Amino acid sequence: MSAPAEQPRAVVLLSGGLDSSTCLALARKQGFVCHALTVLYGQRHQVEMDAARRVAQALGAHEHQEISVDLSAFGGSALTDDIAVPKGRSGDAMAQGIPVTYVPARNTVFLSLALAWAEALDASDIFIGVNALDYSGYPDCRPEFIMAFENTANLATKMAIEQGRRIKVHAPLIPMSKAQIIQTGLELGLDYGLTHSCYDPAPDGRPCGECDSCLLRAKGFAEAGVRDPLWGP
Amino acid sequence: MSAPAEQPRAVVLLSGGLDSSTCLALARKQGFVCHALTVLYGQRHQVEMDAARRVAQALGAHEHQEISVDLSAFGGSALTDDIAVPKGRSGDAMAQGIPVTYVPARNTVFLSLALAWAEALDASDIFIGVNALDYSGYPDCRPEFIMAFENTANLATKMAIEQGRRIKVHAPLIPMSKAQIIQTGLELGLDYGLTHSCYDPAPDGRPCGECDSCLLRAKGFAEAGVRDPLWGP
Repeated sequence: MSAPAEQPRAVVLLSGGLDSSTCLALARKQGFVCHALTVLYGQRHQVEMDAARRVAQALGAHEHQEISVDLSAFGGSALTDDIAVPKGRSGDAMAQGIPVTYVPARNTVFLSLALAWAEALDASDIFIGVNALDYSGYPDCRPEFIMAFENTANLATKMAIEQGRRIKVHAPLIPMSKAQIIQTGLELGLDYGLTHSCYDPAPDGRPCGECDSCLLRAKGFAEAGVRDPLWGP
Repeated sequence: MSAPAEQPRAVVLLSGGLDSSTCLALARKQGFVCHALTVLYGQRHQVEMDAARRVAQALGAHEHQEISVDLSAFGGSALTDDIAVPKGRSGDAMAQGIPVTYVPARNTVFLSLALAWAEALDASDIFIGVNALDYSGYPDCRPEFIMAFENTANLATKMAIEQGRRIKVHAPLIPMSKAQIIQTGLELGLDYGLTHSCYDPAPDGRPCGECDSCLLRAKGFAEAGVRDPLWGP
């Protein structure tokens, strides 16, 4: 038997954040040879790319590729434009509507690029670290979206149509709370000090501590009963 | 009433080829303010970008944007890699299997980028010039793929989920023969001398006349009973 048949390959979307890093750890745990893909989509800062590189190396990704597609050319998001990132919002405020940090069709773009690479690699598994429970504001983090994309992928590709391969989009974090995600990663040996979550970091890369992403991360660590290594000893 | 409500906006995928140019002409005919999108995905030649610019201008696109995403980094296609483009194939040979000019997940990537721009523009209509009849080799040119993507788009976006807008992916050329496409474009005043179809043009941009795309184009013009202006008087 050839090595690929024994060890299936997967494309894992990796931003370097808490969720996608845990997702990579889970894919590795499940025995996949992992091809990590970081999409540089015109974010306002580079610190998450550095985090993605550190995490890919630490978790033993077989390969890590970065691909650029400048979604900031389209506009429409606080993550790519000069729109202020909200700070200090309560959980209730976060639960109301889709936030300005939403990037139009981002996960559709991410998954389509992951699918393109997966097919070129002859890999039928894609992992994405979306999470619907603690962050229900984004429409493209919901299970019905993931299922619809998987269905599209199985109609879109040579691999599926000509070779009869079934493409699977894994979203193992979907039903987990942030605390459960953190506990899962810690059990798999993930060092969360390597990851990056902040939407609006200082020029030296330190997290702001006040954006939705920082607040959800802090809540998750508090509920997990562990200290976030990002915030020093 | 505001102007956008009277004149709806659409994102139209435009490669500068015969099909996508006809699709833009149809979208204009239907009264859409057209935002033409050309995806530079690592094709081996630049001549089709020049064609896209000429066509967008000639057909009165409101705006024309080019976005780069280097799918050649993933490999797996004669259109992005150093794989020979097949020449002189018969219709029977073309009908057998998916050709090496297939680019993994290309139309999924194209539509996801069109969706991102459409949402940023607050436009709920997307046009793509896929054609299933004369070119059934590509899985992502079939109606079931288009419908699956449209379903995904309506689960993926803030526009659909929060505002209740229904996103529509128009693929008006799907049921047409190449000859019907050409007749349609001619009736709408499209100058096919501005378009470009060849997979493997000469350095000066002249079509090879022998690749699948050139042969299908020639067959279409022959069946339509008109001369292709690309080939001189």
